[in-house]
Amino acid sequence: MAPDLKSVGIRDVTCGEGVTIVEPANVYGCTLGNGCFVGPFVEIQAGAVIGDRTRVQSHAFICELVTIGADCFVSHGAMFINDSFSAGGPARGDRTKWGHTRIGDRVSIGTNATIMPVSICDDVVIGAGAVVTKDISEPGFYVGNPARLMGGEK
Amino acid sequence: MAPDLKSVGIRDVTCGEGVTIVEPANVYGCTLGNGCFVGPFVEIQAGAVIGDRTRVQSHAFICELVTIGADCFVSHGAMFINDSFSAGGPARGDRTKWGHTRIGDRVSIGTNATIMPVSICDDVVIGAGAVVTKDISEPGFYVGNPARLMGGEK
Amino acid sequence: MAPDLKSVGIRDVTCGEGVTIVEPANVYGCTLGNGCFVGPFVEIQAGAVIGDRTRVQSHAFICELVTIGADCFVSHGAMFINDSFSAGGPARGDRTKWGHTRIGDRVSIGTNATIMPVSICDDVVIGAGAVVTKDISEPGFYVGNPARLMGGEK
Repeated sequence: MAPDLKSVGIRDVTCGEGVTIVEPANVYGCTLGNGCFVGPFVEIQAGAVIGDRTRVQSHAFICELVTIGADCFVSHGAMFINDSFSAGGPARGDRTKWGHTRIGDRVSIGTNATIMPVSICDDVVIGAGAVVTKDISEPGFYVGNPARLMGGEK
Repeated sequence: MAPDLKSVGIRDVTCGEGVTIVEPANVYGCTLGNGCFVGPFVEIQAGAVIGDRTRVQSHAFICELVTIGADCFVSHGAMFINDSFSAGGPARGDRTKWGHTRIGDRVSIGTNATIMPVSICDDVVIGAGAVVTKDISEPGFYVGNPARLMGGEK
Repeated sequence: MAPDLKSVGIRDVTCGEGVTIVEPANVYGCTLGNGCFVGPFVEIQAGAVIGDRTRVQSHAFICELVTIGADCFVSHGAMFINDSFSAGGPARGDRTKWGHTRIGDRVSIGTNATIMPVSICDDVVIGAGAVVTKDISEPGFYVGNPARLMGGEK
């Protein structure tokens, strides 16, 4: 049978001044602050909120229930998660099983990093390829899978 | 000189009922079961077989020689491999050096995870960012690079 | 307000003979040698140089200041970095803080791998999901985050 074809697009986005989006991108129902940049091959889902001057680089994925502060940098291929398979598998649309993510200001998230449903305070740097599985409440440079404070205790 | 430009598309796909694909996607020569969903910026190569109701999220890559069961979830940026560079480099089209991947039913593969040519049994969850390098024959939650059973021996 | 929409494309690329690019791709201001292949959903930035017969697979990202040799293989979702957040955050366009990456000939970079600003010698294989944080001057198979020589000392 023929599949039902849909298409990406920029729909129902609340934008501040000076926002740039490079298409193709799938950006819908979210809020982008003043001066935000969104690169190509990016998906930002409904309800996500991105602060002023934050840059979202190519191939990034930002899901529902994610709030990102101002002056952040979401590098290429960085991805967020709201469903941590906590019940042993995907929530399949049961949002009571989804978790929120809150990212502070001046947070930089490295290339190919993955962010579970956590809170990250201001002035944090997440290294390339890191997988953040727990809340981060201390500024610093976090690397590895699972992510740990660089130079901190193991 | 001018490059030869080709374009992605949905070509020669055998679809069950109720399949949805979000374009742009590069989906060709594969089989998608009833109720499958394929998100944007996805590539699914010729010969891949995807079971009923399985969801393939944005940015995923599923290569030739991969078979995925029913009710699975392939999260954003998850990627499969059929060439494990076993000869010290890419097989460069020598398919005798490629390996098969067989994924059971109700398997969830986390965001940015990478799956080498392996077999994974039913009811397995692969964590975000994990790299699966060996067969998995026991249901459970596998995390890390290389992926190990969470809470299992090290 | 309405965002400023831009679009990906193939612009100002210096190509050798027999180059193939699969669109949509964002490839601009770079140099591609004879027989190069560039898959879909790829971004290659200005100034990048790719050697003869090198293949860049879908979802890869190659940034400015990256030079890749001949007969290399950049697998799906593999990404390069020129800004290692060395000052505790993104350089935000201050190129004096960016680093160069030089990849030799016959280097294979695995799926979802991430390459920091480093030099990698000829005949190296980087495993899937690896994060390369240091120069590599010895041929071999490097895996993990951070990447280490497989079978080498820890």
